[in-house]
Amino acid sequence: MSQSANSSINCFRFPIRVYIEDTDAGGIVYHANHIRYMERTRTEWLRASKFDHYWHQQDYNFVVHDIAVKYHRPILMDDLLTVTARVISCKSASFSLQQEIYRDEILLASGLVTIACLSKEMRPRKLPDALKNMILEQLALEQQALENAKLEQAQDN
Amino acid sequence: MSQSANSSINCFRFPIRVYIEDTDAGGIVYHANHIRYMERTRTEWLRASKFDHYWHQQDYNFVVHDIAVKYHRPILMDDLLTVTARVISCKSASFSLQQEIYRDEILLASGLVTIACLSKEMRPRKLPDALKNMILEQLALEQQALENAKLEQAQDN
Amino acid sequence: MSQSANSSINCFRFPIRVYIEDTDAGGIVYHANHIRYMERTRTEWLRASKFDHYWHQQDYNFVVHDIAVKYHRPILMDDLLTVTARVISCKSASFSLQQEIYRDEILLASGLVTIACLSKEMRPRKLPDALKNMILEQLALEQQALENAKLEQAQDN
Amino acid sequence: MSQSANSSINCFRFPIRVYIEDTDAGGIVYHANHIRYMERTRTEWLRASKFDHYWHQQDYNFVVHDIAVKYHRPILMDDLLTVTARVISCKSASFSLQQEIYRDEILLASGLVTIACLSKEMRPRKLPDALKNMILEQLALEQQALENAKLEQAQDN
Repeated sequence: MSQSANSSINCFRFPIRVYIEDTDAGGIVYHANHIRYMERTRTEWLRASKFDHYWHQQDYNFVVHDIAVKYHRPILMDDLLTVTARVISCKSASFSLQQEIYRDEILLASGLVTIACLSKEMRPRKLPDALKNMILEQLALEQQALENAKLEQAQDN
Repeated sequence: MSQSANSSINCFRFPIRVYIEDTDAGGIVYHANHIRYMERTRTEWLRASKFDHYWHQQDYNFVVHDIAVKYHRPILMDDLLTVTARVISCKSASFSLQQEIYRDEILLASGLVTIACLSKEMRPRKLPDALKNMILEQLALEQQALENAKLEQAQDN
Repeated sequence: MSQSANSSINCFRFPIRVYIEDTDAGGIVYHANHIRYMERTRTEWLRASKFDHYWHQQDYNFVVHDIAVKYHRPILMDDLLTVTARVISCKSASFSLQQEIYRDEILLASGLVTIACLSKEMRPRKLPDALKNMILEQLALEQQALENAKLEQAQDN
Repeated sequence: MSQSANSSINCFRFPIRVYIEDTDAGGIVYHANHIRYMERTRTEWLRASKFDHYWHQQDYNFVVHDIAVKYHRPILMDDLLTVTARVISCKSASFSLQQEIYRDEILLASGLVTIACLSKEMRPRKLPDALKNMILEQLALEQQALENAKLEQAQDN
């Protein structure tokens, strides 16, 4: 795992195996499937935080508002990947995550995704409190970790 | 198109282009995608019969009850396919179709699929009258065509 | 797991989580994805038997020759499935498996699939010895288990 | 089509029908499938420019280097979409396109994608001349069209 990924206290990690269904005739994983891996990992991140069965409830929807992916190296058939998810910001009706895909220590792809909360009628809706609190807690823990790291570094000098 | 496909009066045909997303690292179309091509063709068969926006309505669902596919030859990147759909039987709450996938005259795959009509509560439900009538009409036309063909053959002898 | 699945000594089991990418607008898993789950499980069955990185080698290909699937009950978002694979017959250039998909003890779908071994030029090719031996061993173990079960039953009477 | 899309002389348009396989349990098109629609359209753009069977040749590969997608409105089951592709820049070993997805005049999603040309060994490789010339021609035509539009506007004032 990269230094930056490791140093993040709120970085969630999920293992994903690549199957032949994920590859294309170029012999590598089709570029839309990186985005599937990232969503699976967000779902598992929520599940690990006790937000089970969460996307697409009765009275609200979570949808991807925008996503940007950089493809650094090809992902291959049979690869055992580690996919990360780390919240980096939170607004009243949306939040953003940084996500990375690794084979061992090698960064294969990275993404930035914003998730919006919508009402049943597909209008922006405030995040549910429980979810918002969990996200703010993760952001606070990370802020704390960053400050501790700075402090340690200052003391070392 | 094969003789048997051509001779069928109620055989619906739909062109489908193969894209790289459909292929796998073996360089050919992944075997689950044949089943997607068959469903696209059933949807277009319904649309051509004025049953637009038909699957998954408010008060009933159509689901695949069973499917059997034979893979005769590999389907390749960039192939322009013809996929057929032909009803072969009809019950009160389900119907069956024969489907074939061709590149020009070459049969690449064939399938037999049964579609069941379910209520919102996922219990068997009678087919809507309009759909049932359309299917019975197609079956009757085919029966007629078969008998005409037999008659012609008898007169030729 | 069903009695028949449990009693089989050579039945491989693999857990698969359902993600939203697997579902369709009907709210259930799209029917082509059952076939993906079955192939993932066959890949893991081979991996567990030390046939790692096996499909689509340099000098031979394994392709699905035919598949038949019965859909018993809908598979839902977030389901944690158990998918099985059990070889039931073996010829010189192909072999067949029975596969089942369960949620806990409930059978959701079952399939019968024949895998053919092809040369690089896409002609039938004898199964590699190591694979054939592994399959024959599994078939023999199962035959043995069935006979033992019969014997026990006879002694019980 | 939006004014900006229409006014572009080099904007390629391709119709894509949404099938149930493209949707998810949220009742809308799964967000990774927008990226598949965009690649289908790029493939058709190349085909329309006589670059048939272009991706994944013997001695070079085209891969997506990065992609950014904004999801403006949900895409629905049965929608008949228009997807556009327009080159916006060209380097020696890569080029970028702007792509948009419309239902009638309504912009549903937009994307920015960079395609890199790689050698068989997955290293950056100069674009083939024929492709580079086609792209430069399209960029020149657009530049010309923009200048003509400015001129007309100036004369109108």
